[in-house]
Amino acid sequence: MASIVLYLNNSAKDITFPLLEDRFQFLNPNTSSDSSFSSLAGTVRILLCVANSPVNSETLDKYPSLECVVGSTTGLNHIDLAECRRRGIRVTNAGDAFADDAADYAVGLLIDTLRRISAADRFVRAGSWAVKGQFPLSYKVWGKRVGIAGMGSIGRRISKRLQALGCSIAYNSRKPKANISFPFYASVQELASNVDILVVCLALTNETRHIINRDVMKALGKEGIIVNIGRGSLIDEKEMVKLLVKGEIGGAGLDVFENEPVVPQELYALGNVVLSPHRGGAVPESLLRLQEIMIANIEAFFANKPLLSEIELE
Amino acid sequence: MASIVLYLNNSAKDITFPLLEDRFQFLNPNTSSDSSFSSLAGTVRILLCVANSPVNSETLDKYPSLECVVGSTTGLNHIDLAECRRRGIRVTNAGDAFADDAADYAVGLLIDTLRRISAADRFVRAGSWAVKGQFPLSYKVWGKRVGIAGMGSIGRRISKRLQALGCSIAYNSRKPKANISFPFYASVQELASNVDILVVCLALTNETRHIINRDVMKALGKEGIIVNIGRGSLIDEKEMVKLLVKGEIGGAGLDVFENEPVVPQELYALGNVVLSPHRGGAVPESLLRLQEIMIANIEAFFANKPLLSEIELE
Repeated sequence: MASIVLYLNNSAKDITFPLLEDRFQFLNPNTSSDSSFSSLAGTVRILLCVANSPVNSETLDKYPSLECVVGSTTGLNHIDLAECRRRGIRVTNAGDAFADDAADYAVGLLIDTLRRISAADRFVRAGSWAVKGQFPLSYKVWGKRVGIAGMGSIGRRISKRLQALGCSIAYNSRKPKANISFPFYASVQELASNVDILVVCLALTNETRHIINRDVMKALGKEGIIVNIGRGSLIDEKEMVKLLVKGEIGGAGLDVFENEPVVPQELYALGNVVLSPHRGGAVPESLLRLQEIMIANIEAFFANKPLLSEIELE
Repeated sequence: MASIVLYLNNSAKDITFPLLEDRFQFLNPNTSSDSSFSSLAGTVRILLCVANSPVNSETLDKYPSLECVVGSTTGLNHIDLAECRRRGIRVTNAGDAFADDAADYAVGLLIDTLRRISAADRFVRAGSWAVKGQFPLSYKVWGKRVGIAGMGSIGRRISKRLQALGCSIAYNSRKPKANISFPFYASVQELASNVDILVVCLALTNETRHIINRDVMKALGKEGIIVNIGRGSLIDEKEMVKLLVKGEIGGAGLDVFENEPVVPQELYALGNVVLSPHRGGAVPESLLRLQEIMIANIEAFFANKPLLSEIELE
């Protein structure tokens, strides 16, 4: 009985965790027969939340014995953390499973957007090189001032990579980080005023929703570039689209959007944006690492040991 | 008379060097009237070679007083260096004008090819995300073994960047470099056998033409990735296309091709290649730096001082 894990997948994503299936007994409300399920639902102590399946009051009400929610993502905006805290339910996230790969992807989007690699690839594939002559000049990476909005495990890794590319780094977070020597700005707008590129890798919360608003983007300016690998709703997407279309910001590399998988159609026509379908961390090795982290969390929970990637519920 | 510079542009590229036009008197065989030109051609001592304009015996015969050829590119495969040496004509190249930008571009192509960024961008722009669901997993950057074929000013810069991305580096060049501690392989095939990714940034010479042949690519293997920012003819392009089409190498990020602007049509259908129209160094800052370097070379020549970026004619 102790190793039963409630398996909740109400996301649109077709994800499986074979390493966990081998190790634990899953209770899946979407596939269990009514009789067996209802007898176990009242006793299950731990929930595995697949991708961005919503976990809210209504979900939690169904499983009164829950003590722990194991998330499978870095950001947990789909989980009502305040409600978990109120009920004394602990929550874990994906830890650093995706951190290196998300950082690599952010750097790839940054170089691609500045140097126009995807646009150049389209140009070649359209057969334009022989017809239209040279593809336009692009923008230098070396020497750019990059602002990191959200200096967590991913932001730190992005900083390290971009320093080797000759960029200077500044950052914004709730408070200055003790072991980070880059210039700190107390507001993201102040940060945007002082950089050429804004890399968004904040956690999405009620406080950070639309934190990259029109004023921040105007502060970034006509030549400014936004890279977003956090969550779509960190940016006021409607405003961003307007500013991109009008040329009031310089470009964007976007792995995330407000209403995935819907991407604003106006962006399709723009050559200065790179559009990516939320694949920042999506490599086989990170999915293996994620499963190892989730297994470690679940086993620690059942063994009454400290959880591996428990998040602080403030 | 001393500051007359022969301006040779027989390339297909529409390039101008405004900073040089301000400073020197250009003699342009393509625009000069016959009478003024023929009287000066016999006396001109220095030639500015624009882009890949061929400079061979026939060219040099026309200008018997030439003492120096100032190149505007990093690679000088369009200049007959052996013939220049025989005639005692000194040659300069673009120095490090494009080195940082070419290195950035190589890193961008490498991340793009592994993480499938341009392919993902096509997927989104085709409206496939909402219809076909998740874009496939891609390949991790961190931990990859990268072989640098050609450890010159660009290769060194690529190595530094890729180390920050968690890659391990090995290299091949004519001989081991004194101040480089990465493992050295005496042949490019041996290098290819020991790495996941081969970054080609050699100078194109008679010795290096098609140095990346079928055997080298087979040694790289089915999961192996090629990044080429050197010259198209460093690779046996026909063989590369065959191997890519058959899946006998894993992918390629290509900024250069054998018959630019012609790109083999078979590549257009492949999702595991990134195709770029020779734009590795093409940012405004590098074109300014190039002009500064060319001015310094020309002024040093006229002042009988050491040239800034003279190459060794072996």
